[in-house]
Amino acid sequence: MTPVLNLKSHLGGRWVERGGAPGETLVNPATEEPLASVGGGAIDGKAALAFARTRGGAALRALTFAKRGALLGGMGKALQAHRDELLDLSVRSGGNTRGDAKFDVDGAIFTLAAYAEIGQGLGEATFLVDGEGITLGRSPRFHGQHIAVPRLGVAVHINAFNFPAWGLAEKAAVALLAGVPVLSKPATSSALLAHRIVEILLEKQVLPEGALSLLVGPVGDLLEHLGPQDVVAFTGGSDTGLKIRSLPQVLRNSVRVNVEADSLNAAVLGPDAAPGSETYAFFLKDVLRDMTQKAGQKCTAIRRVLAPAPLAARVRDDLVDELGRITVGDPAHDGVRMGPLATASQLRDVREGVSALAADGRLVFGVSEVVALGATPGKGFFFSPALIEVEPGADAPAVHGREVFGPVATVVPYSGRPGEAAEIVARGGGGLVASVYSEDAAFTVDVVLGLAPFHGRVFLGSARIAEQSPGPGTVLPSLVHGGPGRAGGGEELGGPRGLAFYLQRVALEGSRPIIEKIAGVKSS
Amino acid sequence: MTPVLNLKSHLGGRWVERGGAPGETLVNPATEEPLASVGGGAIDGKAALAFARTRGGAALRALTFAKRGALLGGMGKALQAHRDELLDLSVRSGGNTRGDAKFDVDGAIFTLAAYAEIGQGLGEATFLVDGEGITLGRSPRFHGQHIAVPRLGVAVHINAFNFPAWGLAEKAAVALLAGVPVLSKPATSSALLAHRIVEILLEKQVLPEGALSLLVGPVGDLLEHLGPQDVVAFTGGSDTGLKIRSLPQVLRNSVRVNVEADSLNAAVLGPDAAPGSETYAFFLKDVLRDMTQKAGQKCTAIRRVLAPAPLAARVRDDLVDELGRITVGDPAHDGVRMGPLATASQLRDVREGVSALAADGRLVFGVSEVVALGATPGKGFFFSPALIEVEPGADAPAVHGREVFGPVATVVPYSGRPGEAAEIVARGGGGLVASVYSEDAAFTVDVVLGLAPFHGRVFLGSARIAEQSPGPGTVLPSLVHGGPGRAGGGEELGGPRGLAFYLQRVALEGSRPIIEKIAGVKSS
Repeated sequence: MTPVLNLKSHLGGRWVERGGAPGETLVNPATEEPLASVGGGAIDGKAALAFARTRGGAALRALTFAKRGALLGGMGKALQAHRDELLDLSVRSGGNTRGDAKFDVDGAIFTLAAYAEIGQGLGEATFLVDGEGITLGRSPRFHGQHIAVPRLGVAVHINAFNFPAWGLAEKAAVALLAGVPVLSKPATSSALLAHRIVEILLEKQVLPEGALSLLVGPVGDLLEHLGPQDVVAFTGGSDTGLKIRSLPQVLRNSVRVNVEADSLNAAVLGPDAAPGSETYAFFLKDVLRDMTQKAGQKCTAIRRVLAPAPLAARVRDDLVDELGRITVGDPAHDGVRMGPLATASQLRDVREGVSALAADGRLVFGVSEVVALGATPGKGFFFSPALIEVEPGADAPAVHGREVFGPVATVVPYSGRPGEAAEIVARGGGGLVASVYSEDAAFTVDVVLGLAPFHGRVFLGSARIAEQSPGPGTVLPSLVHGGPGRAGGGEELGGPRGLAFYLQRVALEGSRPIIEKIAGVKSS
Repeated sequence: MTPVLNLKSHLGGRWVERGGAPGETLVNPATEEPLASVGGGAIDGKAALAFARTRGGAALRALTFAKRGALLGGMGKALQAHRDELLDLSVRSGGNTRGDAKFDVDGAIFTLAAYAEIGQGLGEATFLVDGEGITLGRSPRFHGQHIAVPRLGVAVHINAFNFPAWGLAEKAAVALLAGVPVLSKPATSSALLAHRIVEILLEKQVLPEGALSLLVGPVGDLLEHLGPQDVVAFTGGSDTGLKIRSLPQVLRNSVRVNVEADSLNAAVLGPDAAPGSETYAFFLKDVLRDMTQKAGQKCTAIRRVLAPAPLAARVRDDLVDELGRITVGDPAHDGVRMGPLATASQLRDVREGVSALAADGRLVFGVSEVVALGATPGKGFFFSPALIEVEPGADAPAVHGREVFGPVATVVPYSGRPGEAAEIVARGGGGLVASVYSEDAAFTVDVVLGLAPFHGRVFLGSARIAEQSPGPGTVLPSLVHGGPGRAGGGEELGGPRGLAFYLQRVALEGSRPIIEKIAGVKSS
């Protein structure tokens, strides 16, 4: 084997090589060609956090929102200037088609631009004024005002393997705009792209020193040194989320933790959306996109396809037809519609998962040995799309309980009653997003309100928006992202809403003129 | 001993006696006379939660905010009609002076009225519309709107012993207004008052069935049955808060937990507030009130008194003078200014705590055997107010690390520099409230902004508000209550802000007319 690039971490203001412990080799998921190695040696987590807090935090807090927004603008421009290189790297290191790569990299650039604009809008202030002033006493002299100030800690961001670019950028954009320095830890398997992004940002010096640190490889002792002003935002499997939340240091110090975990996102087809209708076509396209984009490795991907019982067989057949046309292979080759899974362990998990789902009903599409275009036989983590169907009224505990993180979905028939659709979806225990495809306003309203308590986002799939819509699987910076229960109970983005996680809200109580002076609000 | 009232729980829509295990006897803290007993037998926590979720939740969600507000209005009126009885019971069962009792009971009535008014303002809607609509696509047709809907679970409220009336009411008011049923668990030692309140509310039938349950005594298996739509709001010691947060069921289901724990609230005297000034008098009065009201058993009470070094001796002497005039005794007797602590175990903790604090400096006020007016010698949990002082620059780990939940405070000298004051206060690791007494605007602004990241509320003690102010120790329903780090990392109240904890925020994404129909917003 040829020696490969050893990915360093950027901690305490410098690039650090992790020696000692045996490392991990990152490979191209389509060829298994080694691309980089990651050391697992000790890091000085305490010093890394302290450096970020003191240097990065102080520098960011001294800036106004407009100036922090300008930093994000600079980040976006720096990535845009290296876009082609990043897309190539994404294809090579992530098993992504060029379309998948754009989804990740352009999503990062778009989110940075969106928060740059929010910063512009918040203007020349260093903290937020929250709501109106409140008269507390008999006279308006005794006054209350909430403000929200940057926390004095570090934002530790632990990202999922599927979006090394977008995941880093969307979390960093919000924290940096809030005035909180970031220590970002990409998933090891796809760290190459995140590493290159940080390298570019550091080369171009778009951020103050200490504002953005990068930890590649195992988390080491980092989380043991979290203090009461720090926050952790995690995206990934619920087991890891649970571990982070259970850390004694996190619990003892009331460290804020945001978890965005897997969920069993559902799409509900309305009884009115008959085959042949635009709405049906829109629905089918969205399900198909979610099953195959990023080889189904999206936390927002549709996993459960609820179809009215009379339409379920048709939905199944149409999906089977379409899935049969998906060319799986090395995304470096033309004509490949779906790349491999990200790692050997993902491939194992998805294989096992599909068997578990199939036991709830039956497998209606899927091949055990996929022929991968342009791939060396026996190499690459390829998997065929798989579709399962269950009987009406089936218990289907795996379908409603186990997320299979690959190109996999299940058709679940329901009676056509909005209440039943929402009840079945709710059995997933809380999700990031659910979608409803219908032109029947009464049905849509009923399903949406039934789904709402269980989701962070509900997508209303009317044909009227089909041309403009990126589908339910795309997270938009202006809408919240997260969900209750098994989705982790977290919330990110949502435009300015996302800032709250990084800020401390505090009520000021006292004499009106001095409070208005602090809030920068002129006496009226 | 005469047989005493056995306090029942109200679960599943009926009064339930807890048999089996040996119970606990509640006593008058001033006389140790037995008042009631509490059983520790098993409860059917699963059924109690299910009843509240299905009956209470459905009934509340069917109501608009205005109608839920009217329920709160009815609750307040019912308590007002029994106010004298409740005050007497508070004095007898809680060691409260009549003033302390009013603070608790009237606080409950006031908070219910405040949220009744908020409900009125939110009007005829069953969920909240959060922010403006957002154009998501090239045309305004592709539209986003956040809404916030009631969670479908139960709000489990675990309250502290010090405010059985206010604690129950302030938490219940917010949850019920949000549309979420409440299961309230008072601290056992002061459960008599909470029990009577629930009895009154049930007798008067002011709430739908299942909207308010009461659990008296140990929590049993209740928390093992919490699901992803439930929430827990806890007020009390940080150890118990930690235990609740660490429960496997809570972590696994992403159950929302709000913790409001003890904190080392500080009052900072400005260098300009010289003895003889109105500001100095205001400061002294607030410190003294916080030390003695409820015998210092307030989570918001001032524990650390930061005085500029040149004024520290004077502050100490003035406090010692005033404390010498405080008459401790059975609050049933006229002339008693401060009652006993709530329980024998509180008394033990406070005794130990004062020794620990004194080891950081020296005890300047306090007597080992307090003479309690109207008390039987050897009976009652009486404790003398205690004042400690430390040297300028002292490390004082106990003073900045240990909350002594009684009539106890420590004078901590500082240089007079605003930055130093904030740094010293921050050593407490996060607090519910801090206060600054000064007429110097520049000093005040600097200290306030230095304190803000570490607190949920900052009180600006200018003489201009002295006449109207209840002091930093009073929690107002319109301002948030909570704090980062050792204060638990939670947030309650804050007017409509408090509702968010009980609601699920969800982004609606789709075609504008249907989303505006759902949000009840007319197309503009």
